[in-house]
Amino acid sequence: MFVLRIDLRANRIVRDELEDVLSAGRHFIARTLNDECDPGIDPLSPDNPLIFTCGPFAGWPVSSAGRLSVGGKSPLTGGIKESNAGGELANALAGLDCRAVILYGALAEPGILVVNAVDDVRILPAGEYWGLDTEACAARLRADFGSDYAMAVIGPAGEMRLPAAAICVSDARGQPFRFAARGGLAAVMGSKRLKAVLVRRQKRALPANPAFLPAVRELHKAIEQNPRVETLRKYGTASTVMLTQSWGGLPTRNFRQGTFEQAEQISGEAVYRLITTRGGEGTPTEACMRVCMIQCSNIFPDAEGRRLVGKLEYETLAMCGSNLGIGEPDTIARINQRCNELGLDTIEMGTTLGVAAEAGLMEFGDGERALELLEEIARRTPLGRLLGQGCAVLGRVLGVERVPAVKGQGVPAYDPRAIKGTGVTFATSPMGADHTAGLTVFARVDHHAAEGQVELSRQAQIDRAAFDALGLCAFLMGSTAGRPELLLNILRAGYGVELGPGWLEELGRQVIEMERAFNLRAGITPAADRLPAFFEQEPLPPHGETFDIPPEALRDIWPA
Amino acid sequence: MFVLRIDLRANRIVRDELEDVLSAGRHFIARTLNDECDPGIDPLSPDNPLIFTCGPFAGWPVSSAGRLSVGGKSPLTGGIKESNAGGELANALAGLDCRAVILYGALAEPGILVVNAVDDVRILPAGEYWGLDTEACAARLRADFGSDYAMAVIGPAGEMRLPAAAICVSDARGQPFRFAARGGLAAVMGSKRLKAVLVRRQKRALPANPAFLPAVRELHKAIEQNPRVETLRKYGTASTVMLTQSWGGLPTRNFRQGTFEQAEQISGEAVYRLITTRGGEGTPTEACMRVCMIQCSNIFPDAEGRRLVGKLEYETLAMCGSNLGIGEPDTIARINQRCNELGLDTIEMGTTLGVAAEAGLMEFGDGERALELLEEIARRTPLGRLLGQGCAVLGRVLGVERVPAVKGQGVPAYDPRAIKGTGVTFATSPMGADHTAGLTVFARVDHHAAEGQVELSRQAQIDRAAFDALGLCAFLMGSTAGRPELLLNILRAGYGVELGPGWLEELGRQVIEMERAFNLRAGITPAADRLPAFFEQEPLPPHGETFDIPPEALRDIWPA
Repeated sequence: MFVLRIDLRANRIVRDELEDVLSAGRHFIARTLNDECDPGIDPLSPDNPLIFTCGPFAGWPVSSAGRLSVGGKSPLTGGIKESNAGGELANALAGLDCRAVILYGALAEPGILVVNAVDDVRILPAGEYWGLDTEACAARLRADFGSDYAMAVIGPAGEMRLPAAAICVSDARGQPFRFAARGGLAAVMGSKRLKAVLVRRQKRALPANPAFLPAVRELHKAIEQNPRVETLRKYGTASTVMLTQSWGGLPTRNFRQGTFEQAEQISGEAVYRLITTRGGEGTPTEACMRVCMIQCSNIFPDAEGRRLVGKLEYETLAMCGSNLGIGEPDTIARINQRCNELGLDTIEMGTTLGVAAEAGLMEFGDGERALELLEEIARRTPLGRLLGQGCAVLGRVLGVERVPAVKGQGVPAYDPRAIKGTGVTFATSPMGADHTAGLTVFARVDHHAAEGQVELSRQAQIDRAAFDALGLCAFLMGSTAGRPELLLNILRAGYGVELGPGWLEELGRQVIEMERAFNLRAGITPAADRLPAFFEQEPLPPHGETFDIPPEALRDIWPA
Repeated sequence: MFVLRIDLRANRIVRDELEDVLSAGRHFIARTLNDECDPGIDPLSPDNPLIFTCGPFAGWPVSSAGRLSVGGKSPLTGGIKESNAGGELANALAGLDCRAVILYGALAEPGILVVNAVDDVRILPAGEYWGLDTEACAARLRADFGSDYAMAVIGPAGEMRLPAAAICVSDARGQPFRFAARGGLAAVMGSKRLKAVLVRRQKRALPANPAFLPAVRELHKAIEQNPRVETLRKYGTASTVMLTQSWGGLPTRNFRQGTFEQAEQISGEAVYRLITTRGGEGTPTEACMRVCMIQCSNIFPDAEGRRLVGKLEYETLAMCGSNLGIGEPDTIARINQRCNELGLDTIEMGTTLGVAAEAGLMEFGDGERALELLEEIARRTPLGRLLGQGCAVLGRVLGVERVPAVKGQGVPAYDPRAIKGTGVTFATSPMGADHTAGLTVFARVDHHAAEGQVELSRQAQIDRAAFDALGLCAFLMGSTAGRPELLLNILRAGYGVELGPGWLEELGRQVIEMERAFNLRAGITPAADRLPAFFEQEPLPPHGETFDIPPEALRDIWPA
């Protein structure tokens, strides 16, 4: 495996061999940032290394194991950031025997990076790609380079260096429908004037070890037997709407309520019905990467069957739906699609528009006004650029007190007062408020009770950090829980490595420890491990709960 | 001497005795923040302690020795901040035997703090004071409380928690014409919902030691013999315009030029002529604190002799004048006055409007448009609130590349390419870009040469830190240079302290060391000790220089 170190300013490329099988994904990012990045740098300066990395399973025919990790210092949180996405770019990297690409410096003029092989890397002028939205850009790149490339592109939001910008990644069909969305790494890419990264797709050789395929089959059997997979395969993540609603934890009108009177209209079942009834380009589920048995992505069509958006996820339904008081799936899908085109994180924009509503810039429920505000971004107006900074800066500038953000990042679709373990994750993750850093909503516990939530979150964060280091999809978790040998057997057969008991746990802990070390040096101290005051003070209807886990318990979640 | 620790939330006051004579002003702030403040806190959260402190000379009849230091974590820089002001508040504190007031927490409702004695402190509702501009508020407070109080008030900008907000301090005549302007501590005061601090003025007892008054007379003799004092007493700081112009370092049109074709119109001489010709309420010079032989403050009248603004300083003439391409003193004075009323730092607003012009929100030279933009702040519009964030945030939001800021704070009125020692100070001071942290323009060196500037700045920063710890005005420096015994003799006679040789230097070094320690833990690493790239890359007309002091030399200015 190789690591490509590319100095964009000098157009100089260094190719290193990487020995450590497990230093991949989120682990590789944490190690690289600690080793190579002054934590005090401006995240939008050329000094910020931008990292694309895959896990050790990428490129192999292992289900749901080819997530791409993108990393750097976040312009949104000011701390370390790993943001991962499905799609095919990670598999493509692995196919070229490349574990990671690290981009240093910045281009003098907008460009694109084309990786044909670890010893054939080109930087080309971005030309007319620059300025295009994500879909138009991906379509042009496909037309110009053919379908042999997996790609990551940024939209206008990334070009504008907006901290709410998301990196768009092409999927199994070559469509730009996946996003490494959180933390604003697209703005880092924009600050490097890099419009796109293309990686030639090549089949990764299968390990010769005859134990390899049987080990993979073992894992696949476990996936097949996991009942939650069935739900995901039918309804996608939209299936979560009625679950959080049932706990009273569905963010509604900037976290003023925990249930939404129109929740059923935006539920997984409702979305499924609309897709199957309307037909046309709609598909209830498909796979984002070629090898995936879960296949949780949908394509949501309009009434005429034309695609409205290339996946409508739970977090978008909640944050751009109930959180804005919007109950029409078509409207949410249009907001989603516009965010996708501009290259914006739908979660951050959901919290941002919620804060905009709080400040009187729109009414809750007014989807057309929400779309108008997105057009401010498209038109690059001062207001649009301000919205693109995310909810924390918007709230700070407009003097809004109820701003749902931790470490500068908007709180995603789980009200921490009702789903307390996830609230602990939001407060204490080195990533800022991020459900992917340790979601607890599927655990069989009383999510309203304060007891046990710190431990639950700690374990979820460790597990997730390990998965992010391995490039594994979170939806594999239910299938490997308590059976890490399902993963280890594949690694052993594939790489000949032997790992001691507790290796997975140890991997996750290491990642978080390194991330916290970086953050501390970046000035993100334990004072930042806390939710906004309103979650602690304002009872959440209908259950009337506050987030009542004591700050000391949050501070003690990680060893000092 | 006492220190009052006031918990605003609990209305609880603790009175501590302070033994260390020299832990005052900037030193006291640095020590307190290191000891009591988690460097990771949000500067606008109640966790930020806001400190008002005087130096050991305050309240005595020592010329120019009663500066007030205000401190806390800066919402502008994210680091430690000491911002000092003339006026009478420090003398009033000393008169009550109070070295410092530390404010913790925040009030539930807007209030004012009234200190009648160290054991008679009241928090009263702000009532109708809240919402008033600085002048109206000060006038109302004087009407309600009488003229026995010195006061600090915030304007609408501080209430709005804008990081460009300044704290207004009453002067020798009780007028609200002095400002602790830099670093946005008024926003911290606003976040505590504290509109004003009133301190009853009481004469401080003279030390009994018969050596005291002779020691003071020695100092005063030295001031009288200092030729620069004469210039300041006639022209005030406006006298600096033609000096920086002569070096090609007068910021013009957002630092695009180092000379301004209308410099003479805004020079000290021109301002003096206007004041003396127009007469009326104008005064070419007066003292900001009761005991001051320098008396550098002016009152600038309009053509009818009515006061336009209660001091027109060099930094305002440059930053709201030449830096905006504005060459009419009356227009600059109106901008200045509007900033004063709203409670805004004229330096930060000068850089901010320069960036606004860079972004196309106004034309250089259009003073009326500059005034309109200030009205956006008065009207509390989103654009106004954005402008009130200061130049760094405005530039970041609007995507402007030429943003003159270091550590988030706008670069004041000395172009670092032409006055390089001061450029070193801007780059390396723990305060961010701040001319008061170590100005070198009056040193007799070639300011264009790179050689020796690091050493020059280092010494200037140390000297200034010591002065800020002692509550001494910078304009005393020329009179005590090389003769620290002039100060020591007064301290010895007043406090009975004995200090070793090098005590002043040691004091200054200690301050900077503590400040850097705080900043490092706040994530402000040596990476932040650098000027914006355009100063390094863009030659400055007319001399065509860049800021060519190597980053390594900047990094090495302080011991690691």
